[in-house]
This record gives sequence, structure tokens and C-alpha cells, in this order.
Amino acid sequence: MTGSEIERLIQLLARLPGLGPRSARRAALHLIKKKDELLVPLAQAMGVAVDKIQLCSNCGNVDTINPCTICTDPRRDDTVLVVVEDVADLWALERATATRGRYHVLGGTLSPLDGIGPEDLFIAKLVERAASPDVTEVILAVNATVDGVTTAHYITDQIQGLDVSITRLAHGVPVGGELDYLDEGTLSAAMRSRTKF
Amino acid sequence: MTGSEIERLIQLLARLPGLGPRSARRAALHLIKKKDELLVPLAQAMGVAVDKIQLCSNCGNVDTINPCTICTDPRRDDTVLVVVEDVADLWALERATATRGRYHVLGGTLSPLDGIGPEDLFIAKLVERAASPDVTEVILAVNATVDGVTTAHYITDQIQGLDVSITRLAHGVPVGGELDYLDEGTLSAAMRSRTKF
Repeated sequence: MTGSEIERLIQLLARLPGLGPRSARRAALHLIKKKDELLVPLAQAMGVAVDKIQLCSNCGNVDTINPCTICTDPRRDDTVLVVVEDVADLWALERATATRGRYHVLGGTLSPLDGIGPEDLFIAKLVERAASPDVTEVILAVNATVDGVTTAHYITDQIQGLDVSITRLAHGVPVGGELDYLDEGTLSAAMRSRTKF
Repeated sequence: MTGSEIERLIQLLARLPGLGPRSARRAALHLIKKKDELLVPLAQAMGVAVDKIQLCSNCGNVDTINPCTICTDPRRDDTVLVVVEDVADLWALERATATRGRYHVLGGTLSPLDGIGPEDLFIAKLVERAASPDVTEVILAVNATVDGVTTAHYITDQIQGLDVSITRLAHGVPVGGELDYLDEGTLSAAMRSRTKF
């Protein structure tokens, strides 16, 4: 129907999360129509990404430099190590400027059913970093899911002997959240951890 | 927070229809993680699109060749000219294999309020093509919107004197559609145009 090059562009776009076959066609057409404003710069940005983006060998973050921008930033707090599952979680915490500490990206969670064991995650390096005399606190900022909590327990076992305090994120009512829409587990946790008003 | 190249990639992805800021971040991360399977081929496909994709000077379709694949296909029916607003409509009709005729893509609809007049659309060329002795029918496959119908009327005025029959798509109940969800206009049109069962 259309040129095979356009068809190929559509098929590749359809593999992006959030785009299905129909919206991929719309996106391709939008790109073709906005050639100079969007297609050209996006093709260039992707070319740059192909050439430059790599995993940080220290923390597992993705960046155009290795070690990454955060690992090389002298203003970050060396005493705090924030452990996250995924780069997306690191980005979320950075957007919130929730911490000035360093990060460690695991690259997933333990999941025996999917055949993902400790050796598939970036855990050995985490244990090595946590053993540094600089580090005083390891914050396990994993998702509050079964796999996340399992992974947190495993990591705790691994670094138990070290002279660091191990913490996790608080459970509670999301800011702006309505109690009515919250699950019982969150409400119970928020009630248990209530603070003085 | 992240490398400025990643930030730029996210911002450009967020300008695609169907992707917001949040899903653009997810898409960028997905691309980075699936570098060889997705990012590299997509960057290449976009590079090819930048270099090759152009408007067909005969019908207004987008393709990697000019005249386009449909205009140069000897198996298409030269007697029928299907007028559509947009390339997306052409693609939709081709997916449905709704016609073996040739197409003419207007590139929009008349819209005086937005300052879009006949000279902004690909209408002059349409009149020229409709005047060809080969053409016996012009199908106005524009959207059933106010602007689409206005444009159809304008085109009818322009090619009225020519020896071609001018038709439009039928109105009616969508195949698989439920009457309950249809608007009154469609139902009335479907009733008026009822056919023998």
C-alpha cells in the first residue's frame, strides 16, 4: 500500500510502549508532515543516542558518559546510596529532588518464576559499593511489590554485616490522594505510621 | 538530571501524537534498553524517511518515489479518482481495499475561519486530473464533517462542467455497529438509504 520504508517506520514505532498499530501510523504521518521540525531532529537525537548512550559501570544508570553524570557530580552525598529497580525510578526520584545521595540501579527485581536470580541483577557491585567506608545509609527505594520487597530482603541479607543503616521508603497516603480510592494495605500502613499534626 | 541528549530525545518523542511527557520518558527508556533491536533500526528508518519521503506531485500522497507507488501502478483503475482529505484517509481506504481507483489527497479541508482557502489545498491539480478523458467518476471520500462537506461542495462546483459523475461515500450504520450508540443523523440517513435484504 505505502512505500515499504514508511511501512517499516510504522512497524518500528508500533513497538514503542504507549503506541499501538493505529497510533504508530498517526505518529509516522505526523513525522512525515513535520519533517523539518520533528522528523529530522528526532532522527538526529536517535543517532546521538545510538552512538553515545551507555550503562554507567558504577551505578547502572544510563547516560552519555561513563561513569554517569550523577556518579561524577561532586555535590552529591557520598554517604547515602539509594537502590532502585530501574532507571525510570531514578528519573522519578530526581524529578522529585527526593534525595541528594548517589544511586544504584539494579536493573530489575529477583523473580525466580521468570528465572531472574541475583547474578542477573547489578547486586554484586551494590554490595561492593555499600562496603565503602563513605557509605552510612542504604535506602532501598524499590517498588512496594512482592518482587520488590523480596529483592529488598535479599539485598538486606547481603549487606547485613556492613556498618550501614538500611532503610526503605515510607508507606502512606499519596499527597493529594483520596482515602476512598486507597487499598486497605496502604491505609493500614498510613495509620500505623501516623505522625503528630 | 539525565544527560541532555536523553532529555532532548524525550522532548522530541513527547511531540508525537499519542505520547505525553510521561509515556515519552517510558518510550525513551525502552529505546535505550532495546538499543540493538529497536533504537538502531528506528534511527535508521527515520534517516531513510528524512532522505527519501516526499509528496507525490501528481496526487499529494507521501511516498519514497515521485510519482508515488499508487500513481505508477499500472493495475489501478484510471477511470476512478478518489478524493480524500489526508494521507491517513488514503491509508485507511487501502487497508480496506475499498477501491482500485487512483487517489487525490487534498491535504486538508476548506476552513475560512482558519484561513484555509482553495489555494492552500491541492484542488487546482484535482480539477486538471478530473478533466482527463480517462476519468469517468470522481468519488468525494471526504470526512462527513461540516468542513469535509463544504470542501466537497466546492470541488463539485469546480468540476461540474466536466463529463464525470461525482459521487460520495454512503452514510449508514457501521458494520458491527449498534444502533443504540449511533447519532440521529446517521440513523436517519441509514433509514432513508435502506436496501432490500
